[in-house]
Amino acid sequence: MPNKEVLFGKESKAIDVSNWYLQLIKKAELAEYGEARGTMVIRPYAYALWENIVSSLDSEIKAAGVKNAYFPLLIPMHLLETEQEHVQGFSPHLAVVTHGGGKQLKEPLAVRPTSETIMYPYYSKWIQSWRDLPLLINQWNNVVRWEMRTVPFLRTTEFLWQEGHTAHATHAESWEEVLRALKMYERVYRDKLAIPGIAGVKSASEKFAGAENTTTLEILMPDGKALQGCTSHDLGQNFSIPFNINFIDKDGLRKNVWQTSWGFTTRSIGAIIMVHGDDRGLRLPPEVAPIQVVIVPIKGKSVETVINQTQAMAQALKKQGIRVLIDDREELSTGAKYFDWENKGVPVRLEVGVREAEGSTVTVFRRDTNTKLILHKDQIDKEVPLLLTDIQQTMLTQAEDFLKTHFFDIGDYDDFKTIMSSGRGMIRAHWCEDSACEAAIKNETKASTRCLPLDAPEEEGLCVHCQRPSTHRWIFAQSY
Amino acid sequence: MPNKEVLFGKESKAIDVSNWYLQLIKKAELAEYGEARGTMVIRPYAYALWENIVSSLDSEIKAAGVKNAYFPLLIPMHLLETEQEHVQGFSPHLAVVTHGGGKQLKEPLAVRPTSETIMYPYYSKWIQSWRDLPLLINQWNNVVRWEMRTVPFLRTTEFLWQEGHTAHATHAESWEEVLRALKMYERVYRDKLAIPGIAGVKSASEKFAGAENTTTLEILMPDGKALQGCTSHDLGQNFSIPFNINFIDKDGLRKNVWQTSWGFTTRSIGAIIMVHGDDRGLRLPPEVAPIQVVIVPIKGKSVETVINQTQAMAQALKKQGIRVLIDDREELSTGAKYFDWENKGVPVRLEVGVREAEGSTVTVFRRDTNTKLILHKDQIDKEVPLLLTDIQQTMLTQAEDFLKTHFFDIGDYDDFKTIMSSGRGMIRAHWCEDSACEAAIKNETKASTRCLPLDAPEEEGLCVHCQRPSTHRWIFAQSY
Repeated sequence: MPNKEVLFGKESKAIDVSNWYLQLIKKAELAEYGEARGTMVIRPYAYALWENIVSSLDSEIKAAGVKNAYFPLLIPMHLLETEQEHVQGFSPHLAVVTHGGGKQLKEPLAVRPTSETIMYPYYSKWIQSWRDLPLLINQWNNVVRWEMRTVPFLRTTEFLWQEGHTAHATHAESWEEVLRALKMYERVYRDKLAIPGIAGVKSASEKFAGAENTTTLEILMPDGKALQGCTSHDLGQNFSIPFNINFIDKDGLRKNVWQTSWGFTTRSIGAIIMVHGDDRGLRLPPEVAPIQVVIVPIKGKSVETVINQTQAMAQALKKQGIRVLIDDREELSTGAKYFDWENKGVPVRLEVGVREAEGSTVTVFRRDTNTKLILHKDQIDKEVPLLLTDIQQTMLTQAEDFLKTHFFDIGDYDDFKTIMSSGRGMIRAHWCEDSACEAAIKNETKASTRCLPLDAPEEEGLCVHCQRPSTHRWIFAQSY
Repeated sequence: MPNKEVLFGKESKAIDVSNWYLQLIKKAELAEYGEARGTMVIRPYAYALWENIVSSLDSEIKAAGVKNAYFPLLIPMHLLETEQEHVQGFSPHLAVVTHGGGKQLKEPLAVRPTSETIMYPYYSKWIQSWRDLPLLINQWNNVVRWEMRTVPFLRTTEFLWQEGHTAHATHAESWEEVLRALKMYERVYRDKLAIPGIAGVKSASEKFAGAENTTTLEILMPDGKALQGCTSHDLGQNFSIPFNINFIDKDGLRKNVWQTSWGFTTRSIGAIIMVHGDDRGLRLPPEVAPIQVVIVPIKGKSVETVINQTQAMAQALKKQGIRVLIDDREELSTGAKYFDWENKGVPVRLEVGVREAEGSTVTVFRRDTNTKLILHKDQIDKEVPLLLTDIQQTMLTQAEDFLKTHFFDIGDYDDFKTIMSSGRGMIRAHWCEDSACEAAIKNETKASTRCLPLDAPEEEGLCVHCQRPSTHRWIFAQSY
């Protein structure tokens, strides 16, 4: 009974999540290490998943009136150095081109780690009047950031992402855009990837290099650590001043624009694996699964009848817009096929043998709960879409339950330390907002501030560490 | 009457095509020069055009069973050097990363100029048995090739493209794939971009570095020069031998695979501009136009009636799946709007004034012929789709007519020289297939062999240059 086996023995998710994660990526054929240090090859199955994520997010970006464009990969160093905090933050992570066409370049070129400094000289040119605002541009591309420790999808030297860059007439408008992007990400994570998160604002020490404020969606991982799922930055006028991005306003005065930037990366695939994977392998939310339903013919004696049945079923499901595949590989046993598709996380499997071909029902396996059910064959075009919706919802609920059971409201620092030294999780606690205190907590518990939740009310309290007055409860966790 | 004006005076397409081309790109807001030498910024309007081209081509690629994936940007130098002809061809065009994370790298990394050498180590790993074949992978990405002379879209240091890379059990199968890709490109150029071309095989001196054979679609430009619109390569076993890509065949023997690679780039946007643009600006084929129909309200006295009418029309057209925009900019005159959209090449303009709002007809401008017609308002949902189809066909016919009138069957070398020193064009002539003779022709006329057309019959003849026996007539032209 290979379908009852688990893929992962010693590498169980519960025992060694890091090893489990790497083994899953290998066995589900998601990625390989690249030849250059820290890079990765995104294999077709994972790339198809990424295309579905991109498609969802791109629709939302376009619906918000943001236009896609493309800016160059290579950034002359003098541009990168225009904003001081920005260059200081990114300098240790740059890949630098020093030679082109066989000659040493007069000025080295950075491979973009992010595109603020290559885009904003054009913003300066394109924006002259209040009529040119807001300027809303996004690009889908690859970026390179030299990293010491890399993990496929979660932290790689090169990754794929989108970066939105907008310019506005007022700070109120740009802040609204920061929140719009963050809420869009939260929606995509929740409704498409079935992943809940905590949306909030970063502390000063955790914000993007060059931003006034950074917002984030923090996602709880199975080992109780938090993953930064995306970021949306309020850049204030930090770039518009050095890059001279200004406009004549309706009142006739020349003003600097207010800017935002926001990004969502292939790290989201790592989040899907981490949150939804189990000891049989990957589990994919139907909304983004490259294959939503796999039909496995069990040929037996009535080969032709079985094949006709699988094709009829596939047709019926395709008509409903479902992404379906018939696994007719000759060289694999039925058990090996079940094993393979469970490993790859296909949400629904239809098992079609002689009994199903000749009878009126079909056996269905749902990957979210690893359970079987029986459906009437002539109902599958109605029932399977409902099942997919139910699976999507169930996976979200499972992830929400995990978050709830690993989320702690803490007032006492000893409790804080106990949690961080055992099963970990997310802690909500009062903090005085002094970065020295934040550093001490991190030093003692490895937990850092993850965010101040957007909906956190102002409330009187005492800092969990130093007992000085605090006005808000922040989220703490160990992070990747 | 600004709509009667032409954008281009001294920079008429007929007088100075290079200058006309650069002015058009600027005025239609398609691109800007990048900050690093030879790079470019693809502005939103041109990027939306690229997205439509990508969407068409990607559907065809997927329908052929090819799967998308993503391989790293950075290629360790020792991999690039694995195939000798390949590295010799690309060495002069490399951008090289020598520093990462603040340190000099032990081994420099090339920014991919093309991905054969970063992909094929994985092909070697993934392909073990005949069951693993064919392996059909494509990727959409950016590549960098250091170029001496650059022109936006047509030749840039960085460009966007797709590169398909396939591996097969036999040479017959891989050759079939080379032709499948070429014909797919030919179809996209013809049916989507309304651009005819001549599909054929390159001579030995013109083929891709590392290929056995290169096929191409050669497109005639308005100045009588030829543009290589895409390429599809028969790589033979040139890479599978040094990269050890082999498999156990059905007969139990270990064999090297036969490979292909094929690419289509943002150069296609340059081809659209060159082939279809006129002295009013860009003209876009409806199939790929970001905006297919622009509706210009001419408000006059009945502002509300006019606005209601434009919205009703836009709704009716959107229901037909047409990409429509209402230009309700307050700050521009009607004439300036006409001027702008003609410049940007929108195929159809509906002019909605008080007369139209109150009457039963609407005035329509078609950009392919720069003429006006009248349509019944209640018929636009039926008539406009037909009009767009007609425009698409008319633009293809116009381009075919230009190709026909600039295509010459030549037997006499003096005639050959006369054509190449005056209006230029494509010449079909016998050639002995000796590369010394090819070089002499190029030296004397600046014309090189562009291709041997796929459908060229074997026929006895004498080389147009040396008068030695020839078996085929080749296409010659000056190239970019």
